[in-house]
Amino acid sequence: MAAMIDEGLELLSEDECLQLMATAGVGRIGVTIGALPAIFPVNFAVQEGSIYFRTGVGTKLAAAANRSVVAFEVDRVDPFEHSGWSVLAIGTANQVTDPEELASLSTLRIGPWVEGERAHLVRIPVEVVSGRRIIHGRQPDGPRGRDS
Amino acid sequence: MAAMIDEGLELLSEDECLQLMATAGVGRIGVTIGALPAIFPVNFAVQEGSIYFRTGVGTKLAAAANRSVVAFEVDRVDPFEHSGWSVLAIGTANQVTDPEELASLSTLRIGPWVEGERAHLVRIPVEVVSGRRIIHGRQPDGPRGRDS
Repeated sequence: MAAMIDEGLELLSEDECLQLMATAGVGRIGVTIGALPAIFPVNFAVQEGSIYFRTGVGTKLAAAANRSVVAFEVDRVDPFEHSGWSVLAIGTANQVTDPEELASLSTLRIGPWVEGERAHLVRIPVEVVSGRRIIHGRQPDGPRGRDS
Repeated sequence: MAAMIDEGLELLSEDECLQLMATAGVGRIGVTIGALPAIFPVNFAVQEGSIYFRTGVGTKLAAAANRSVVAFEVDRVDPFEHSGWSVLAIGTANQVTDPEELASLSTLRIGPWVEGERAHLVRIPVEVVSGRRIIHGRQPDGPRGRDS
C-alpha cells in the first residue's frame, strides 16, 4: 500500500499516531493567555483515547475549566539523524473532578518532575489526530499534498 | 541573586532564553487551521532577535502572509534525567520576500531535512520571550507564583 506523502513527509494513520503518542512521555500543549498564543511542555499519559496531564492553578487549568479546544503535539525529532515523526491531537480540554474517576486514574504514570502543587488532572479527549514521519531520500512519484 | 521560582520552575532571564533557543535546531510553532489550533515542529535558526524557518505553501506560510501573532516554543526535556528547560517566544510572523534580504539570510543554517519545495522563508521577530528551567529538589523557601 502506498503511503500518503505530504511534501516529503509520510502521513501516518490514526492508529500509528496514537501508538507513537503513547511512547512519548512529554508533549506540548497550545493554549491562549489573554489573546496571546502559548505552548508549554507537559508530562502526559494516554488512556482510552484521552491525554492526561497534571497541572497547578494557571492557564493550562483555565483552558480545561473553560473547555477550550486545545492542540497537543508530540514528536521525536533527531537533529543529528535528521529523522523523526510528529503527531498533532486536538480536543476539548476538561478537568477531572469526580472522586471515583480521579481514583481510577490515580495509577496513570504522569508524576510531576518538579516540586509544587500540581493537584489538578486535565483530560483532553482526542477528537482529531494527525501525524507525519520524515522520509529519507527522494519520493519523486509520491502524491504531494499541501505543506501544513 | 535569588532566582525567581514559578511553582518549582526557575524563571529564566530574557538573555538566557535567547541563548538557550539558539542552541536548539528544532522548535514548535503554534498556528491556527481554520478555527482549530495546531502545533508543528520546524527546523529553525535565530539571528538578531528573530526566528527563521523555511516552509512550503500551507498553514505556516499563511500565518506569515497574514501577519499572525504566533507562539514558538523550544525545549530540551530529558525524560530519564527529569531535567530540562523550555522557552516560549511570541511574535508577529511575516514572510521574507525582499531579494536583498533573502540573499543576506541565505547563509542561515536551516536546511530542510525532507524532500519537497520549502522555498519560503518565514521570520518571527521575537516580541515577548519567557522561559523556565526544571529545578531538582525542594525549594521550600522560594516564592511561588502561579503555574502557567
